[in-house]
Amino acid sequence: MMDLNFLHPYFLGPKAENLDCFERFLLEFLRDHAYWRRNFHPGDGNVVPTSAPYRDAFQDFIASMRKELQELSAELKNAAPFYSPRYIGHMNSDLLMPGLLAEIMTMLYNPNNVAAEAGPATVPRELEVGWQLARMFGYNTDPQKGSVVAWGHLTSGGTIANYEGLWNFREVKFYPIALATAARVTGIDFESVGPLRRRLSEYSSWELVNFSIQDTVKLLEESSKQVNAMALSDGELQRFRNQIDRETLVGLGHADFFAKHREIRPPKVVVPITAHYSWDKAVKVLGLGLNNLVLVKTDKTMRMRMDHLQELLAGFEKDRVPVLAVVGVLGSTEFSSIDPIDQIIDLRDEAMDRGTYFGVHIDAAWGGYMCSLFRREETNQFCQREEVGEDLKHFPSEDTYEAFKAVGESDSITVDPHKLGFLPYPCGAFVARNMDVVDFISQKASYLYDIKDDRGTKNRYDKLLNLGQFIMEGSKPGAAAAAAYVSHRVIPLNKHHFGRIVKVTIKSCEYFYSKINHLAYRMKKRVLIKIPFFPQTNIICFAINPKNNRHLALMNFFGRKVFEKIKINRFKPLQMKEFIGSYTSMVKGKIDDELASEVLADLDIDPQTFQTDVIDPRRQADHIFLFRHSLMSPWLLHRFEGKNYIDHYVAYLERMIHEELDALGESS
Amino acid sequence: MMDLNFLHPYFLGPKAENLDCFERFLLEFLRDHAYWRRNFHPGDGNVVPTSAPYRDAFQDFIASMRKELQELSAELKNAAPFYSPRYIGHMNSDLLMPGLLAEIMTMLYNPNNVAAEAGPATVPRELEVGWQLARMFGYNTDPQKGSVVAWGHLTSGGTIANYEGLWNFREVKFYPIALATAARVTGIDFESVGPLRRRLSEYSSWELVNFSIQDTVKLLEESSKQVNAMALSDGELQRFRNQIDRETLVGLGHADFFAKHREIRPPKVVVPITAHYSWDKAVKVLGLGLNNLVLVKTDKTMRMRMDHLQELLAGFEKDRVPVLAVVGVLGSTEFSSIDPIDQIIDLRDEAMDRGTYFGVHIDAAWGGYMCSLFRREETNQFCQREEVGEDLKHFPSEDTYEAFKAVGESDSITVDPHKLGFLPYPCGAFVARNMDVVDFISQKASYLYDIKDDRGTKNRYDKLLNLGQFIMEGSKPGAAAAAAYVSHRVIPLNKHHFGRIVKVTIKSCEYFYSKINHLAYRMKKRVLIKIPFFPQTNIICFAINPKNNRHLALMNFFGRKVFEKIKINRFKPLQMKEFIGSYTSMVKGKIDDELASEVLADLDIDPQTFQTDVIDPRRQADHIFLFRHSLMSPWLLHRFEGKNYIDHYVAYLERMIHEELDALGESS
Repeated sequence: MMDLNFLHPYFLGPKAENLDCFERFLLEFLRDHAYWRRNFHPGDGNVVPTSAPYRDAFQDFIASMRKELQELSAELKNAAPFYSPRYIGHMNSDLLMPGLLAEIMTMLYNPNNVAAEAGPATVPRELEVGWQLARMFGYNTDPQKGSVVAWGHLTSGGTIANYEGLWNFREVKFYPIALATAARVTGIDFESVGPLRRRLSEYSSWELVNFSIQDTVKLLEESSKQVNAMALSDGELQRFRNQIDRETLVGLGHADFFAKHREIRPPKVVVPITAHYSWDKAVKVLGLGLNNLVLVKTDKTMRMRMDHLQELLAGFEKDRVPVLAVVGVLGSTEFSSIDPIDQIIDLRDEAMDRGTYFGVHIDAAWGGYMCSLFRREETNQFCQREEVGEDLKHFPSEDTYEAFKAVGESDSITVDPHKLGFLPYPCGAFVARNMDVVDFISQKASYLYDIKDDRGTKNRYDKLLNLGQFIMEGSKPGAAAAAAYVSHRVIPLNKHHFGRIVKVTIKSCEYFYSKINHLAYRMKKRVLIKIPFFPQTNIICFAINPKNNRHLALMNFFGRKVFEKIKINRFKPLQMKEFIGSYTSMVKGKIDDELASEVLADLDIDPQTFQTDVIDPRRQADHIFLFRHSLMSPWLLHRFEGKNYIDHYVAYLERMIHEELDALGESS
Repeated sequence: MMDLNFLHPYFLGPKAENLDCFERFLLEFLRDHAYWRRNFHPGDGNVVPTSAPYRDAFQDFIASMRKELQELSAELKNAAPFYSPRYIGHMNSDLLMPGLLAEIMTMLYNPNNVAAEAGPATVPRELEVGWQLARMFGYNTDPQKGSVVAWGHLTSGGTIANYEGLWNFREVKFYPIALATAARVTGIDFESVGPLRRRLSEYSSWELVNFSIQDTVKLLEESSKQVNAMALSDGELQRFRNQIDRETLVGLGHADFFAKHREIRPPKVVVPITAHYSWDKAVKVLGLGLNNLVLVKTDKTMRMRMDHLQELLAGFEKDRVPVLAVVGVLGSTEFSSIDPIDQIIDLRDEAMDRGTYFGVHIDAAWGGYMCSLFRREETNQFCQREEVGEDLKHFPSEDTYEAFKAVGESDSITVDPHKLGFLPYPCGAFVARNMDVVDFISQKASYLYDIKDDRGTKNRYDKLLNLGQFIMEGSKPGAAAAAAYVSHRVIPLNKHHFGRIVKVTIKSCEYFYSKINHLAYRMKKRVLIKIPFFPQTNIICFAINPKNNRHLALMNFFGRKVFEKIKINRFKPLQMKEFIGSYTSMVKGKIDDELASEVLADLDIDPQTFQTDVIDPRRQADHIFLFRHSLMSPWLLHRFEGKNYIDHYVAYLERMIHEELDALGESS
């Protein structure tokens, strides 16, 4: 059994066991803040007179505020007990005390992280959070150790971070062609640039859209140097710079850019079928088009299938269709599956050898913090597999281990501190391997072709303090940055600290897996209970099919009936719930047919009853209903009455299944 | 003098005068939350044993948490006193107590407003906040009172809300052409649809991209009905629906859509030169292209010039270039100027009569809450101009009044509750006049061509509870929704409540204006002090030019020297600051030359010294440096030592100008 004592001071606790401590801190920093106010020009005197609270109007306002707050409190209490180990539904849990306290404290000061002027204490902390995360992922953050240095910043959530991934890739990918066009128009050329050390004008369009990110960054640097050496007149320089701005994809827009460069097809974005729906939104919002989102099939563990990816990429290469990004998912939100990042990286590097390039973005919104489990404390070295797997039965599988090991080779990463980072909303993050990419995002990349403003002298860090210039959002909470910063400082992102929390969630999942298998065995005479995908980390799904039923619609119906018991219902007292879960659906048309047939066969369901057509009145059959549990609560292995929370849940589930089977028998 | 007593219970106060009250509420709701935890399965017992706090490891953790929190607190205290009436810089201030308390309370419960399942109590409140704002703007929110019903939701900030404005317009604008194409391909046609009640196939592409939003909504409804009446086979229906999805702009992406429809040019987005830089980002991110962002000149009050707008629109109409949006700014972030919304609406309606259409979006990130000053309590009626102007000298001018009156005629609005709503970050909002637009944003608009899923029976409200389906973001803080909801409930958005706070800010600005003019008079022998743009609401700018100086570079240098005194400097004790301000720059090339010359002439600066070329070493001369003060603090008119905060500031400024003039005299 794992020692869970280390968790004791981290959270408020399911019974608010640490209320005393939390309250003390909260009061300390509230008063600290209040007395700070009094110490700025103490002589100014009170604006609210000490007699104010005794006036009727004042009291009326306070009374109405109390009424509204009490009503809010009442509704919140009837909602969902996310903090509780009896909540095993969505990716939501209790929050880390240091993060929550830092968030509340900072909110009193009200900083805005759009720029350091509005968030003098919190913008630097936001950049530091970016580096904390980057180190956990294995990106270089030390300019002494390599010319490629990472950076990261917070977003309102993983969705925006995913948009930023594509946005960054896009501006970089189509820059060489814009530069080459502007150079041609203005009669300028560049010697010995790009991966082939040729004149820029000698590259074909296809070659130009296949420069790697690092090559494009270098191109900007080298061409800027060459321009400076040309000693152009101010007018010539200005003309050249304006021309670049006009020729970029962001200048022209997609329509005019691709109309101008007919030899170049609009790019594809490649994601696994497990990808979050924010990827659909991303290609729509960015104007890339949903038809250009390409879905890769998954194997039986819901990992991206490399043979399919390879086939797709080969096709695009043959047809000369640029690929903007291949997105690997590190911890899918429905199954917590881990895509083979290492093999995606290999494909990228092999493609590069053949002169084609795509960016690799990792959607680690859920799984990002799991990387902490793989890092040693002092050195930040990547751990041996055995070290990681201590106390665990299956994790990490060879595949999973190799995937995590390769994370630092990717180009950018989405991670949600407000998910497995146990921090308050909103706290997403975008982390990029190469900080130089911001030059293509900010105002005008052409600005760098300016002898008095070259990057050598300009302090990059000072520039990043104007955060709003380099990100999709504008005004944003300094409080979120403070929360993440403090949390990462007191629970560092390595296996000895944060990694232990992650390990508990994975251990809970392994335990859950074995208990569900026991349950399946115990109940095999009445129902088939199957875990269709071996859980690779800390989310598990299963299906329940009454014995001898071969119709998907009935299985779904039955599943939903049982699920009713563990479903949030804000019109009934919360206290009636024993446990709260969540579900997922595998939708026909999205899931691979072959895979679906295997899953259904395993459940003894006739695959013919899986109906693709949503017009069909038997709607319940266009998807496969699955129970889904995020085992995020750190307390699931805590024992009381001789059993832990998972044991209690499985016993409860067993009773509920029997109950519904009995009801089904009676009604039929 | 205005009675400021009503403000007393709203804020914590510059001397934390309401600490007692705030602390009592905070403790009440923290404990309420804690004891709630104990009342969910009380029998489960403690997870953190009562002995835990006495263990060394526990204490070590608490000690390290205290250290980090104290360091954070120390840095925050050296940052910026946004709460103080001595802070007259950016749009940042103290927060309303009800909002702050609701935010903190809700954060303890950790709801996620991506969907009602993750935020059962807070998603309904978020929708209600949308309607609260919609009513303040004059949009209809009552299905009984009209078929066009508004909706709104929160965003991480105004930047995202601006993106959403364009995203919504885009999906609607290009839908008719997608439908017509799909209909043609599948051999279907629609009778008597669209504004001209013709067959759909009889409309030209130009006509189809100029359907109004309302016409397109109706087209979707009517064509859906006609399809249902056709009694197509399941296969035919499926084929038709798939075809629509393939033909939409979001399906094809901009490049393929406009390559396919060569007769249609990519659309323009029209904004005033005062527009926030998020509009640049918006057209870049969305793939529309910066070259398609069209800037309208402003007049001497920084309001959009209607003659210029008209000229631009006429040109586009003549050349058959679609216009996606005309954006009016209600309270520019630099000058708080109010664009003539009424005249923009008139132009839209006139264009509609001629068969062309553009959406009108209002960027009211800053000025949105000013609408509360124009609404009566019981009836929500728009007030008479005299009623609004009570206690004020200039506001609202005839122009301003008409602009506000027309807000409800726009198509969508951006507003930032975390700005003039005095609420914590992040809290932006997007509000749309016509809720039906979400059909074009959600999964697949084609889904509506389904006899079993028509909109008549589907409850729109239930649908919107799955918020993440209809907005750009995903996971998002329920706490922000709770904060806005409670704040709007206890300080309703009308002239008797919230409007009074707004009025104080405007009154402060009028007072400031007259005091700066007095100062200019007093100092006229040594400097010229000019307010280049008459402040229409609550932000004011001025420039200071030493007497007899004709060079812009020197004026800018001098201004910056004085500004040093009121600039945030986190490396010096905050207590050394008397006041804190902000500045803005009017950049050559962005500001209209004619207007710039007028401003400069007024300051006795030779317009020739305003250098456009950023390559010029005299960099300080490519912009006009202006002091800028957001008069957002509600306490500026509070008097102590016989003067109010503005008097104290102006006196301080006078001393500082003399000091710098003396230094300048010595050094030259």
